[in-house]
Amino acid sequence: MAATTSVQSLDVDPLVVDLYEITMVEAYVHAGMVGRAVFELFVRRLPRARNFLIAAGLEQAVAFLESFRLSEAALDELEEVHPIAPATRAVLRGLRFSGDLDAVPEGTVVFADEPLLRITAPLSEAQLVETRLLNLIHFQTLVASKAARAVIAAGGRPLVDFGLRRAHGAEAGTLAARAAYVAGFAGTSNVRAGIDFGVPIFGTMAHAFVQANDDERGAFLRFALAQPPGDGITLLIDSYDTEAGAANVVSLSPELAARGLKVAAVRIDSGDLAEHARRVRRILDLGGLRDVRIIASSGLDEHAIAALVASGAPIDRFAPGTRIVTSADAPHLDCAYKLVEYAGRPRFKRSEGKVTLPGRKQVWRVRDARGVVAVDHLTTADERVAGAEPLLVPIMRGGARVTAPPPLDKLRARASREIASLPEALRSLAPAPPFGPRPSALLTAGAGWR
Amino acid sequence: MAATTSVQSLDVDPLVVDLYEITMVEAYVHAGMVGRAVFELFVRRLPRARNFLIAAGLEQAVAFLESFRLSEAALDELEEVHPIAPATRAVLRGLRFSGDLDAVPEGTVVFADEPLLRITAPLSEAQLVETRLLNLIHFQTLVASKAARAVIAAGGRPLVDFGLRRAHGAEAGTLAARAAYVAGFAGTSNVRAGIDFGVPIFGTMAHAFVQANDDERGAFLRFALAQPPGDGITLLIDSYDTEAGAANVVSLSPELAARGLKVAAVRIDSGDLAEHARRVRRILDLGGLRDVRIIASSGLDEHAIAALVASGAPIDRFAPGTRIVTSADAPHLDCAYKLVEYAGRPRFKRSEGKVTLPGRKQVWRVRDARGVVAVDHLTTADERVAGAEPLLVPIMRGGARVTAPPPLDKLRARASREIASLPEALRSLAPAPPFGPRPSALLTAGAGWR
Repeated sequence: MAATTSVQSLDVDPLVVDLYEITMVEAYVHAGMVGRAVFELFVRRLPRARNFLIAAGLEQAVAFLESFRLSEAALDELEEVHPIAPATRAVLRGLRFSGDLDAVPEGTVVFADEPLLRITAPLSEAQLVETRLLNLIHFQTLVASKAARAVIAAGGRPLVDFGLRRAHGAEAGTLAARAAYVAGFAGTSNVRAGIDFGVPIFGTMAHAFVQANDDERGAFLRFALAQPPGDGITLLIDSYDTEAGAANVVSLSPELAARGLKVAAVRIDSGDLAEHARRVRRILDLGGLRDVRIIASSGLDEHAIAALVASGAPIDRFAPGTRIVTSADAPHLDCAYKLVEYAGRPRFKRSEGKVTLPGRKQVWRVRDARGVVAVDHLTTADERVAGAEPLLVPIMRGGARVTAPPPLDKLRARASREIASLPEALRSLAPAPPFGPRPSALLTAGAGWR
Repeated sequence: MAATTSVQSLDVDPLVVDLYEITMVEAYVHAGMVGRAVFELFVRRLPRARNFLIAAGLEQAVAFLESFRLSEAALDELEEVHPIAPATRAVLRGLRFSGDLDAVPEGTVVFADEPLLRITAPLSEAQLVETRLLNLIHFQTLVASKAARAVIAAGGRPLVDFGLRRAHGAEAGTLAARAAYVAGFAGTSNVRAGIDFGVPIFGTMAHAFVQANDDERGAFLRFALAQPPGDGITLLIDSYDTEAGAANVVSLSPELAARGLKVAAVRIDSGDLAEHARRVRRILDLGGLRDVRIIASSGLDEHAIAALVASGAPIDRFAPGTRIVTSADAPHLDCAYKLVEYAGRPRFKRSEGKVTLPGRKQVWRVRDARGVVAVDHLTTADERVAGAEPLLVPIMRGGARVTAPPPLDKLRARASREIASLPEALRSLAPAPPFGPRPSALLTAGAGWR
């Protein structure tokens, strides 16, 4: 099935919101604050174990903004837990997102302090969407950035996401599959991500199948016989003894061949994966199964994958899960959604460690002759940087999208090009000196403004 | 609003599933494997930074099992990405969960190797629900266990969850609010969690409100005037200079009092929270605002809270978020859902580091005279331990629940009692020697069985 841009898995419930967004709107209404606001969403600083981020989640953010409204039923639900004044209810009733969205396209490399998106809208609208915009952009950017490291570590070997069971909920599992695919994974085990986003889906065999049979060889045979003819069969060989499992695969293969069946791969899910892979490879090769591939899973992250690749372990495909979909070594980003302009005047914040530069911004990326990222400039939105590419582009105007939703494979191709165009130090799994944008003189001059 | 047991936020989509659950069912159908299976869900080992877990997520698991079915529309969706044989489709069509569920009640303290739930059902049914059961029980148990540490650290000071924006999706944010409340939090900022679960909701003030006004004092006044009379007002005082913010609160209070308004609390969200709280307390006290409380947020976890409490910082309430809802220092648990019996015979698995004991089990908790947990015993389900309490209790029989859904406050009260009944070493934030159940002789004898 072709990759799609569907966002069906999305919960567009407008009441998945922090109460203070509602209380702010109550105060805005009461104070007559109906001016146009500009908010920017950015990451303040990267975790030590991330040299770059991959922007992701924009399509879901657009879908949320397009569908945002507070129905009478939703307002009734709200008033069950938080009564609101009739004037506020009148404003909330029928409120739609009528503003503009500029954003960095998904799959683009970004760094700290670079706005991933900019909302320009009446103050109340821009405020009400804060929590969910952060929630959506944060999570997929988090996972895509982690997954990109695994893709780099795998050096071209395909990766499949097996993380759904330990992802933080159903939405997390499905959006993580999407984000990992954008970052370069080959697919996922999650059926819903296959249906909604066209991410290729993969499934192997459960330990339960082996256990529910009285012996492993019989289990393999029964499982193989149940597969549609022509499909490559993947057998899980570590339920009791991995090498004995490989030997069972060898001894079974003539019987399978006689029935027109063929084992395509074996999966190892425990123990020393490098050592088992080597032994299993030897057993398979001696048994004439040189083209049977080896899939490894169990506790994989970019470091484990890099170590397995470096050791020369004959593993053809990796199936990481938990550590990618939870971004285990850095399960959150220090992101913020901050007012930078209201009623035509730049605004800022001076809170310690959380200072924001005033005014709407643009990021300009300068590449060297080989296309490698050389420097990023952070400017006011009105400045231009010659020979550089602006990262923020128009996505919505007046509440409607102005660009067609890109196919997911296009985002994936972009991420691949972007990762390839990073300087070597930033592509490394080891922490590099932080790379960030240089603020323009005009922008920093504005920081003194109040 | 009274606490409820609603599970409205739940995505009950049966296609949020690993593909291999489907391919397993195809093989079961093909091989005629229709026997009754018993699976147990447990955590293999605890993260180093967790001395105990709080079981959570059971109500959502029950709701999922009760509603589980593959409609024609769902099967059509499935076949878009994974064609299935007519015989399999016939089995899947109309399949409901008809089995039994035994589980440890939510709010109960559990340890490694102790089954949190046990499913007894026809093999295909038990297999199809694996991924989502793990996904639901894992996440809430993860968050409740993390949140319980923050509750211990806060020493009775109320905690409010502010984590929605950086939770891993909408479902994660809402279920995390529920789990944290079960563990002892006082409430959440998440409106949806208030509506669906009756968790008390709290909201303060955004930096954007202060920024969108031309000066902070004016912002405070406008915000206060917008509040319903009688409501306590919370002002966010760190947008520019925290102590100047506190001084603004003092200078404003006579004007507010003249209008019948009163500041109930101030919130500090940046910088050295202990130092700011001390200075702010002094400013408020000198200004005659001794009863205005101080709320602290920003990067809080159990260690930061414990340090603030130990320092004597005059903070009355904490609002942690990100680090709790992502369980930042241990964002996943090593949980598994394993076949332990099929067709009346115990089953096991011998994979390295992932060995499972065969047969259905029970956990028995022995307490000392003061009610403190003394020892847990892991036995076969048929054994009895005199003077001990069995942790797994019947929840569903034949696909229907046999106990009424408990009110959320009952689960919260249980968690509070359970945490109080832990030995001091396990309640400590410092890692304690692992506490786990003692397997009975009958159970370990079965481990030699194949």
